[in-house]
Amino acid sequence: MAKRKTLRSDIAWATPERIFIKGYDLCDELMGNLSLGDMAFLELTDRRPTPQESVVFNALALTLVEHGLTPSAIVTRMTLAGAPEAMQAAVAAGLAGLGSVFVGSMETAARVLQEALPDPKAEVDLDALAREIVAAHAAQKRPIPGVGHAFHKPVDPRAPKLFEIAEKNGFAGPYVTLMKAIGREAEQKLGKTLPVNATGAIGAIASELGLPWNIVRGIGVMARAIGLVGHIREELANPIAREIKTRAEEEATSHRR
Amino acid sequence: MAKRKTLRSDIAWATPERIFIKGYDLCDELMGNLSLGDMAFLELTDRRPTPQESVVFNALALTLVEHGLTPSAIVTRMTLAGAPEAMQAAVAAGLAGLGSVFVGSMETAARVLQEALPDPKAEVDLDALAREIVAAHAAQKRPIPGVGHAFHKPVDPRAPKLFEIAEKNGFAGPYVTLMKAIGREAEQKLGKTLPVNATGAIGAIASELGLPWNIVRGIGVMARAIGLVGHIREELANPIAREIKTRAEEEATSHRR
Amino acid sequence: MAKRKTLRSDIAWATPERIFIKGYDLCDELMGNLSLGDMAFLELTDRRPTPQESVVFNALALTLVEHGLTPSAIVTRMTLAGAPEAMQAAVAAGLAGLGSVFVGSMETAARVLQEALPDPKAEVDLDALAREIVAAHAAQKRPIPGVGHAFHKPVDPRAPKLFEIAEKNGFAGPYVTLMKAIGREAEQKLGKTLPVNATGAIGAIASELGLPWNIVRGIGVMARAIGLVGHIREELANPIAREIKTRAEEEATSHRR
Amino acid sequence: MAKRKTLRSDIAWATPERIFIKGYDLCDELMGNLSLGDMAFLELTDRRPTPQESVVFNALALTLVEHGLTPSAIVTRMTLAGAPEAMQAAVAAGLAGLGSVFVGSMETAARVLQEALPDPKAEVDLDALAREIVAAHAAQKRPIPGVGHAFHKPVDPRAPKLFEIAEKNGFAGPYVTLMKAIGREAEQKLGKTLPVNATGAIGAIASELGLPWNIVRGIGVMARAIGLVGHIREELANPIAREIKTRAEEEATSHRR
Repeated sequence: MAKRKTLRSDIAWATPERIFIKGYDLCDELMGNLSLGDMAFLELTDRRPTPQESVVFNALALTLVEHGLTPSAIVTRMTLAGAPEAMQAAVAAGLAGLGSVFVGSMETAARVLQEALPDPKAEVDLDALAREIVAAHAAQKRPIPGVGHAFHKPVDPRAPKLFEIAEKNGFAGPYVTLMKAIGREAEQKLGKTLPVNATGAIGAIASELGLPWNIVRGIGVMARAIGLVGHIREELANPIAREIKTRAEEEATSHRR
Repeated sequence: MAKRKTLRSDIAWATPERIFIKGYDLCDELMGNLSLGDMAFLELTDRRPTPQESVVFNALALTLVEHGLTPSAIVTRMTLAGAPEAMQAAVAAGLAGLGSVFVGSMETAARVLQEALPDPKAEVDLDALAREIVAAHAAQKRPIPGVGHAFHKPVDPRAPKLFEIAEKNGFAGPYVTLMKAIGREAEQKLGKTLPVNATGAIGAIASELGLPWNIVRGIGVMARAIGLVGHIREELANPIAREIKTRAEEEATSHRR
Repeated sequence: MAKRKTLRSDIAWATPERIFIKGYDLCDELMGNLSLGDMAFLELTDRRPTPQESVVFNALALTLVEHGLTPSAIVTRMTLAGAPEAMQAAVAAGLAGLGSVFVGSMETAARVLQEALPDPKAEVDLDALAREIVAAHAAQKRPIPGVGHAFHKPVDPRAPKLFEIAEKNGFAGPYVTLMKAIGREAEQKLGKTLPVNATGAIGAIASELGLPWNIVRGIGVMARAIGLVGHIREELANPIAREIKTRAEEEATSHRR
Repeated sequence: MAKRKTLRSDIAWATPERIFIKGYDLCDELMGNLSLGDMAFLELTDRRPTPQESVVFNALALTLVEHGLTPSAIVTRMTLAGAPEAMQAAVAAGLAGLGSVFVGSMETAARVLQEALPDPKAEVDLDALAREIVAAHAAQKRPIPGVGHAFHKPVDPRAPKLFEIAEKNGFAGPYVTLMKAIGREAEQKLGKTLPVNATGAIGAIASELGLPWNIVRGIGVMARAIGLVGHIREELANPIAREIKTRAEEEATSHRR
């Protein structure tokens, strides 16, 4: 049996006395010195954040922790109702729905920005780039990512707050500028109020932090895992999953019974 | 269709202009002010941590983020290999295995401690309590939770570090004392070196933080979600899942082909 | 790196020209000759069922395919709403809740029967055994597995039908007799109408088929996967997940907004 | 709280005495009369199969049950190692990887066929259609779905067997003809041996059975759930997950320790 490829991982390794993560000694260098959010940054970049990066990244991630009774939260609660001995499976089930419709949208925003501007240091006419992006999406009748919000109207309050935090910490660079330009251009082109939403702001600021678009969804996945544990805690104290299920079942089959 | 129970959740709610989480205004009070780890504490307790609680809780959670190529990490990588378009499902699959064998052990430690000492302020002979716990487990031939480690011998380095952080921040109370007493008593009773391990230290310190045992596993679940995103990032850059699979498949069926 | 254990699997293997499953040539012996249910029997026993076993096993499994808008079905539909590109993750999320509360109950019934009667050929007083089982459960205030039903009163119609099919095909042996005796004894002891339910009948008949209790839950898991694909199909045609979510969210937070 | 949409499901409903699935009385009409595979057909079409449809559909589904130590099977085994109390979560984790790379490919084949030939009764030059499809895929450098196989060379033995079963039962219609024409055309265009593989045969025959492409992946998901329970059974008897994990972990970190 030939080894076609040597297995290699540089994330963590251990001796009986010491544990290393990305080259740091877990006990001596990380525990007590690094916050959970900064550890997440380390997982995504292989280095500890600067104080400014830390504020910005923690704000991004925190924004994604909790959205109340989302489909994911209901899924976690219903799964717990059937398998209370397997809390981890309830969180897992809740995460499974973080696909293209909800959390995936910020991946799309980051992707559009990074593909349009592969080198953030390049001198580019960002307004022209925004026009191209909006025109291309309109031509293919695809929604413009990162703008508008069905409920938070006229403005999604998270977006200006995230931009403010990014600017204060030196991360209001070309991706943020481009994202805002896309919002302005979309409003003009489509004649609607379409300010940048949380999704767009996160996609832009994650790009400023140097995170490649194909890992951006991961910020939402890790953050939501935290929030789903909070829903498990509330469901244990005040269960609502069965009531939601019973009402749905009764109404949906009332025409047949 | 009668409503048998009114649905109620107090985690989060929103108006078009504002978003509230546990009563805090997300944009005005949390974003930029609270770290991701402190947000996790808020999810688990309904309040922001004190500076001391923050250090201790972040250290607990950080300890659980990353353990290298665990079964969970391999599961996440193999799932990604089949469904690269659904990163969230890859993290979900990895979390599904955080059951009784791995992460569940710290839940057991916390449970034993909290059931033995329901009121941490009660005046109790903790050494006597430890003797009872060890004797009861020995009588039923159940493993004593939170002591010993198959690889980190003689001492799991995370445990003394966690205890040190807890003590510095005023959280070396009766649960920590009881856990250490269990370790000493287990060593004496079983005649083996069985110091408190990371699981035991986390169970004890989570109890000091006032977290009920039935949510303690959740710290591990949320923390590991962060680590699994890190494994997705490495698997995207240097895939190893298929090689692991091909070797296993070839060896396991070589006697039949 | 020492190999501590040789990897071995005897489920399936292949050459470029042929595929074998449990020793059968997939193309020459199974495809077109074996039904899906009989294939499931092969997976659970390493052999093809007799015609009688086939009827009984297919009836068991079929009974578990579909229960309408269960928590699992709602979970699958809500997960699909967020990740329509990952149908497999929607089924996975739905399965995650098939734990101790729902599908696990038939595992418990099978376990009680098999632990009470490890050798089905032994000459045992089954009525006395039933009295012991009911008394032991009552003493520990544990529910007696496999009897009574909250909705299907006085009799769960699936149980007598399953027993009828089992009897017609020669599978009304000691486990079925014991399960029925447990039902009678439970009624007498507790003074309530507690006939054997579907769970009890399946646990007993699976035991007659020689399936060990620790795999019995698997019949429910595989069957429900089939039903959940049916719910995906209906949700694609007539989506209801979002409406269920929106109503729950609005009611649950109305006291705060 | 306005109901924006009435909830409605026509899959199953019950009274205390009777249970209905798709309008059939579960106990009187389905149990004992319908096999598990035919029940799956009922879930996918709202009607029972004809004898011919039954043979063809069961053959399709059976083909997808078991592929040995796939990534999914390893995922299920590793998840069980961590959470043996939650078999359902182990199956769920295994299913999560049935995405675009593995099972998704037959969805793609069915989609290409059904989009090219929306009305199977239309009189169309199928060879010309095949040329167009192959040319379009080649122009966009996309792989032609349903042809060629990396291991089963020169011919995937499942494809001719499936076509044979379909033909015998009257389901060798235009989708089968078109799929075969795509294979021939691909061989000519690309100068390689590229016969139709199992994926292509299943996509074509599922189309003959009238199953819309967006549910075809579901056949694979339900079938594989059956196979994964088989892997749980073998893992319980002869565990290999930990050995696979230990070897991978040791090799992958040997350069750092």
